[in-house]
Amino acid sequence: MNVMGTLFRVELFGESHGPAVGAIIDGMPSGMALTPDDFAADLTRRRAGAEGTTTRVEADLPELLSGVYQGRTTGTPLCVVFRNQDVRPADYSRFADLPRPGHADYAARLRYGGFADPRGSGHFSGRITAGLVAAGVMAKKLLATARFTTTILEAGGQRDITQVVREAWVAGDSVGALVELRVNGLRGGLGEPFFDSVEGLAARALFAVPGVRGVEFGDGFAAARMRGSEHNDPFVAQDGTTARNGAGGVNGGITNGNELVVRVAMKPASSIARAQTTWNFSTGAMDTLSVPGRHDGCIALRAAVVLESSLAIVLADLELQARARDARTDGRSPGSMP
Amino acid sequence: MNVMGTLFRVELFGESHGPAVGAIIDGMPSGMALTPDDFAADLTRRRAGAEGTTTRVEADLPELLSGVYQGRTTGTPLCVVFRNQDVRPADYSRFADLPRPGHADYAARLRYGGFADPRGSGHFSGRITAGLVAAGVMAKKLLATARFTTTILEAGGQRDITQVVREAWVAGDSVGALVELRVNGLRGGLGEPFFDSVEGLAARALFAVPGVRGVEFGDGFAAARMRGSEHNDPFVAQDGTTARNGAGGVNGGITNGNELVVRVAMKPASSIARAQTTWNFSTGAMDTLSVPGRHDGCIALRAAVVLESSLAIVLADLELQARARDARTDGRSPGSMP
Amino acid sequence: MNVMGTLFRVELFGESHGPAVGAIIDGMPSGMALTPDDFAADLTRRRAGAEGTTTRVEADLPELLSGVYQGRTTGTPLCVVFRNQDVRPADYSRFADLPRPGHADYAARLRYGGFADPRGSGHFSGRITAGLVAAGVMAKKLLATARFTTTILEAGGQRDITQVVREAWVAGDSVGALVELRVNGLRGGLGEPFFDSVEGLAARALFAVPGVRGVEFGDGFAAARMRGSEHNDPFVAQDGTTARNGAGGVNGGITNGNELVVRVAMKPASSIARAQTTWNFSTGAMDTLSVPGRHDGCIALRAAVVLESSLAIVLADLELQARARDARTDGRSPGSMP
Amino acid sequence: MNVMGTLFRVELFGESHGPAVGAIIDGMPSGMALTPDDFAADLTRRRAGAEGTTTRVEADLPELLSGVYQGRTTGTPLCVVFRNQDVRPADYSRFADLPRPGHADYAARLRYGGFADPRGSGHFSGRITAGLVAAGVMAKKLLATARFTTTILEAGGQRDITQVVREAWVAGDSVGALVELRVNGLRGGLGEPFFDSVEGLAARALFAVPGVRGVEFGDGFAAARMRGSEHNDPFVAQDGTTARNGAGGVNGGITNGNELVVRVAMKPASSIARAQTTWNFSTGAMDTLSVPGRHDGCIALRAAVVLESSLAIVLADLELQARARDARTDGRSPGSMP
Repeated sequence: MNVMGTLFRVELFGESHGPAVGAIIDGMPSGMALTPDDFAADLTRRRAGAEGTTTRVEADLPELLSGVYQGRTTGTPLCVVFRNQDVRPADYSRFADLPRPGHADYAARLRYGGFADPRGSGHFSGRITAGLVAAGVMAKKLLATARFTTTILEAGGQRDITQVVREAWVAGDSVGALVELRVNGLRGGLGEPFFDSVEGLAARALFAVPGVRGVEFGDGFAAARMRGSEHNDPFVAQDGTTARNGAGGVNGGITNGNELVVRVAMKPASSIARAQTTWNFSTGAMDTLSVPGRHDGCIALRAAVVLESSLAIVLADLELQARARDARTDGRSPGSMP
Repeated sequence: MNVMGTLFRVELFGESHGPAVGAIIDGMPSGMALTPDDFAADLTRRRAGAEGTTTRVEADLPELLSGVYQGRTTGTPLCVVFRNQDVRPADYSRFADLPRPGHADYAARLRYGGFADPRGSGHFSGRITAGLVAAGVMAKKLLATARFTTTILEAGGQRDITQVVREAWVAGDSVGALVELRVNGLRGGLGEPFFDSVEGLAARALFAVPGVRGVEFGDGFAAARMRGSEHNDPFVAQDGTTARNGAGGVNGGITNGNELVVRVAMKPASSIARAQTTWNFSTGAMDTLSVPGRHDGCIALRAAVVLESSLAIVLADLELQARARDARTDGRSPGSMP
Repeated sequence: MNVMGTLFRVELFGESHGPAVGAIIDGMPSGMALTPDDFAADLTRRRAGAEGTTTRVEADLPELLSGVYQGRTTGTPLCVVFRNQDVRPADYSRFADLPRPGHADYAARLRYGGFADPRGSGHFSGRITAGLVAAGVMAKKLLATARFTTTILEAGGQRDITQVVREAWVAGDSVGALVELRVNGLRGGLGEPFFDSVEGLAARALFAVPGVRGVEFGDGFAAARMRGSEHNDPFVAQDGTTARNGAGGVNGGITNGNELVVRVAMKPASSIARAQTTWNFSTGAMDTLSVPGRHDGCIALRAAVVLESSLAIVLADLELQARARDARTDGRSPGSMP
Repeated sequence: MNVMGTLFRVELFGESHGPAVGAIIDGMPSGMALTPDDFAADLTRRRAGAEGTTTRVEADLPELLSGVYQGRTTGTPLCVVFRNQDVRPADYSRFADLPRPGHADYAARLRYGGFADPRGSGHFSGRITAGLVAAGVMAKKLLATARFTTTILEAGGQRDITQVVREAWVAGDSVGALVELRVNGLRGGLGEPFFDSVEGLAARALFAVPGVRGVEFGDGFAAARMRGSEHNDPFVAQDGTTARNGAGGVNGGITNGNELVVRVAMKPASSIARAQTTWNFSTGAMDTLSVPGRHDGCIALRAAVVLESSLAIVLADLELQARARDARTDGRSPGSMP
């Protein structure tokens, strides 16, 4: 299944070199203003073309097949489709026997028995995230007061990201990166203890983005080296503001009204021009492989907005669930001091 | 909601000082041998009493209310209950106005409007994880060939864990820790690309354990500083073995048959004896708070088995889904080379 | 799985002669008044003892293991348990080889491979519906303005129900019945077209009650013999009232604000004292069977409140989903004339 | 939401006069042969053109956007799209104030606040069932051994269906119908007691088809008038065959291996040429309405295959769940006599 959500639901479909990729986005309230142009800004952030990104350029014009009428959401499932256009025929069949290191070629064969569409990595392609970005745009419409700030903190361990990506690219190689997402303006009270914690749901959504190796909130892995007296966030004001934010805005799985802070470790792109050795399952011996085609030197450059979209989708779902709780039957306003 | 899973489903309930905590575990095949003793080993790993853990000691005798007959699972929902016994009346009501730093007191008020059971942190208590461990025991029965190895790599940044926990404990403080989970013997082909990736589902389950701040797979955050030529795992044998395991056993969201490797950052326990300053929402001014009661110096000591249980639950669910695919209609064995 | 619901979720567990039966009820808002006495009225309606019902009498005292504090819901999962007390040891093992006609003995063996608890029909027992009734009580609390009217229209094809049940009972037999459920005071706008239609979700919940053979709305099966000009309900007032109610209060899967009208066909109880012939799977020949024990002459007598509970659960879930839509972001009140 | 299923999942989207209608079909095993031609037979059964059906004729050529490669399913989500072509501009806006009796116009306004696409009934149109039929085709592929027989038993209460539909059509009216679905060759052991009963899941899916007013299994509503000694089905052979089939092939919510028998009551089409009176919400007075356009005289003629598709979808989902149970860990074959 490639579906996520309770009240705000997203399902992704498509293969990189098939007819199209896209998404079903369900659970939007009716009556929200929507035009295809609304998707442009985030899709542009995801688009290739900049230095260090693949040269495959798709127009990425979203086609809205359903769920919109006269410029407003109808409240029924919205299907958005991106036609695949810049498809170059290539021979991917050899990766069935000579799986690319770091790619899903081998795992996909175990999972799909050799029937997955191999062209351009098929359903494993980063291209499928176009639908995810479209869903993120809808999610942000729902989260009207939230402000997202997404930053690539470093790549290849360096702050000068442009330089390190260029060097790797020239060397036929790629670099990983560290991405930080901050969200202000969220209501407190989103999420649940245990399985529907904000951290857990967000992590599930963030790991959906190809190339993610780690997710941390607030102090994150540094908290493993801290004492409680350092890590605890003292409250300092009547609105719940804390003096520091080691929790990243979440206590007990629930937002506390402070800034939500998440960091994501992105691996270096698996596809590199440099020759690599790997096993040849046809000959039963080691072999050498150079992955041809159009590569990203640092997938985080394009994936940052995808991470932001994934996070927004989860938060929109939790926001809708919170709205169901707003209408209290006993006349007390929710969240008031007892 | 406090529920997770598709075919193997777990729902947790209970409050720390209410009548009981427990879990519904659904989706077990019928006919699996099961006695209450089967839970003893893992529940003992979770039990308090060792140096650096709380002195609240519960017998943790699981009561099986349903789903078992004559020592075998019936295939219907299994309800396991742990009665709360070592409950000491204490005044938790003041935390409504003076929320403990690092605790869910304040976030819970936003979420539940002041109606959550505050005694012993109520539904936010680590005690609720007893049901999670019970579910993990059932999950491991399902994963008959899997071997779990869970290790606390370090606490407070030190390898000598005993010493660092003791020092913090004596100082009325607590320390965080880094926990590593390794699983051998899993089948390849578990999981899906995108939303049902092994990493995403596992991370959701791991963040359900109170105190988790970060989750990483394989090289994890180190991958953000690596080049593709370093991070990619070359295949080196016909069984899919890789020369290194920077992917942690997962490619494209799907297990590749290599060891599954996850690391989890646990924060230091929030409850510390040392005095802390925080906001008093009743007086509208800063105040001083010392959390009384029975504390853990390092929650990872008891939480390690809970993390392992969470991971097992996810893997058992994916294993059942994989079994549904085993029975192929075209006569080809799944996973065979095309 | 034995679970249902999106925002208001119910999971049933238990076996008739095991330690207990019960339910997890999740998704209740916090702060709703709740005492064990609140369950008494509906549980009494479900209780045995009247003429024509089984003589197995259980105290049916609900034990609330979680989710309640100081007489109010906490907003966390509520676990309600009914201990089994009036359990009489009997030999049910022979039904493994000599399955009772109309019972689930044979189907259960196909489903659970012979491991289901056979005592008192195990998880197939009507006793499991005690938890369902408890969930229905919570659902009706959520549906504060709704009024349920449930009537047994006829039994064995007769309006004088008392007489027909007595005659069947004396003859060691049982009779079926027709039950009508009416709900007033529901909001319009509940439900969705297609898979989440009010009729579809309600029917799923109603067929969960053991012994249901058919479900119809409004004109029901009679509509199959009507013309459109007869069956269509003309609107006759500004509040949406219709002149007749052949649709049973639902158009396009969505409540229209008129009375919800559902009728349910209940089969005669399968367990009868009269001798029946059936196949003996051990001897491989026809055999004679008389089902011993405590029987219901007409299951509808006790099942009527269970049907009502099932319907209430579905409507409560849809009500919570509607509340999530109430908080509109564009300032327009929902449902206003455009 | 417009989604259904656990392992075999279907989501419908689209509006009657928008760009397209379609479905996402997820959970198919990989490697199953599939061409667009496979959909032709069932789509033709659903197509208009016969006497008594609408004259709107769509080519209904399914476009497979994803999930297929080289004539086989890939195992990833399959998106099938039907472009809307025979769209005639018409003024549907007046139905906002003058809702058609029997239609969803009024209920939709309560649900979607006036933002639903009104053209050709938008997302409420029977046209959306094209995607449902496509999903049914996939479901039947999964249920390789099942044989479906679907019959219109009567229309307008008459067996001579052709004649009664013609008469109603000429009179500018419509007639309801009774449809019977029979499925042979299903495995026993599908389904669960209570919420996931075969009857409940099937009923939910059948009520998803626009115009269904009632669903019954086996003896159905007649069982309400029977005695247990009449209604119980005696087993008569070692393979579980019963002498009669009053249960319709399901005991305790689980298939028993006998023929599955379901009957569905379809209402007469709401759209009729004859003038009808109804409320005018703009003038606040009664008004007269004649629904223009292309009508069906008996929706069952085209809906029969849609009902069959809905049923197949549910059974395919249950079949996949049963496959997950086939691989038993204790070496016993499932369903063997204990």
